[in-house]
Amino acid sequence: MRRVRMPDAICPVARTLDEIGDWWTLLIVRDAFAGLKRFGEFQKSLGLAKNILTERLKTLVANGILEKRLPADGGARSEYYLTDKGRELRLILIALRQWGEAHLFKEGEAMMIARDHENRPIPRLRLVDASGDTLAPGDIVITQGRRKSPAKPARAARS
Amino acid sequence: MRRVRMPDAICPVARTLDEIGDWWTLLIVRDAFAGLKRFGEFQKSLGLAKNILTERLKTLVANGILEKRLPADGGARSEYYLTDKGRELRLILIALRQWGEAHLFKEGEAMMIARDHENRPIPRLRLVDASGDTLAPGDIVITQGRRKSPAKPARAARS
Repeated sequence: MRRVRMPDAICPVARTLDEIGDWWTLLIVRDAFAGLKRFGEFQKSLGLAKNILTERLKTLVANGILEKRLPADGGARSEYYLTDKGRELRLILIALRQWGEAHLFKEGEAMMIARDHENRPIPRLRLVDASGDTLAPGDIVITQGRRKSPAKPARAARS
Repeated sequence: MRRVRMPDAICPVARTLDEIGDWWTLLIVRDAFAGLKRFGEFQKSLGLAKNILTERLKTLVANGILEKRLPADGGARSEYYLTDKGRELRLILIALRQWGEAHLFKEGEAMMIARDHENRPIPRLRLVDASGDTLAPGDIVITQGRRKSPAKPARAARS
C-alpha cells in the first residue's frame, strides 16, 4: 500500500516526511553516519529485504542524500556516502534520539549514546527564539509565508 | 505490509521511529499543535482513510502522546489533546521543518513558517557540545552505554 505523496505540500514538515518519512530511510542514514558503506553492510545491520533496501538506496541517491561511488581500490561493489544534504539530517536523528532517550527507556537500561569528540554526552537540543531564550512548545505559531534565505542560528552568546 | 518492529532496540533512534515513524503520526501531531481536536478535523486536514486515522489515533493514545477526552460542553464527539510527552515532539517537528526549508523549497516559494510569539522566525536548531560550541555532523560518536538521567541542555551563555 503506497501512501499519499505530498512533494508539493506547502508545509515543510509534510515535504520532509515525503522525502525521508519512510521508516527505513532514516535508519539507513543513521548507519551511513556510523560508517556503513556497502549494500551488504546495510542489509546485515537492518535485516530488511534486499528488494526494499535496493529501492530505498536508489531513492536516497535520487534525492541527493546519498552518493553512490565505486570504491577507490578498484573493487566492483558500490559504496554509498552521505552528501552535505544527507549530513544535515544528523540534527533530525539527534532530535529523534533524545526524545526516545527521555520517553522510551527505563532508568539504567542499555542504550546507544551520542557523544562528542571528547566523549561527553551531546546536550539536549533547545528550541530558542531569536534572542536565544528557550521556547516552550506552545510558544510557536505557524503562518503562511515565503521562503527567503534559510533561518539563521540563534546567537550563541547573550550579552 | 507490516514493517519489522523494534520496540526493544538498543538504539533510541530505532525505538523512536518504532513509535512515531509512521508517516501519518507526525502529521497528526503537527495538526494537534495547530489546535485540531476532533476526528473529523484531522480527517479533513490529512485526507486519509477513516480506518487508518482511527488506528493511528488509537495508537497515539495508547502510547501516551495524545489524550482522549469528552468535550467540556457535554458533546458526544471525543477530542484529542497532546500530552506532555506529545508536546515534546515539537522539537522533532521543528527539526524536520528546518531541513525541509533548507533543502526542499525554491527561493521565494510559498511555505508555512514557524514563528515565535513576537512573530519572529524560529532560529535554526544547533547541535552543540557540553560547552555550547557548535558540533559538525561528523563530530558525534555513538557508543553503547546506559540510560541515566536525561541529558541536560547546553549552557545558554558562555563565559
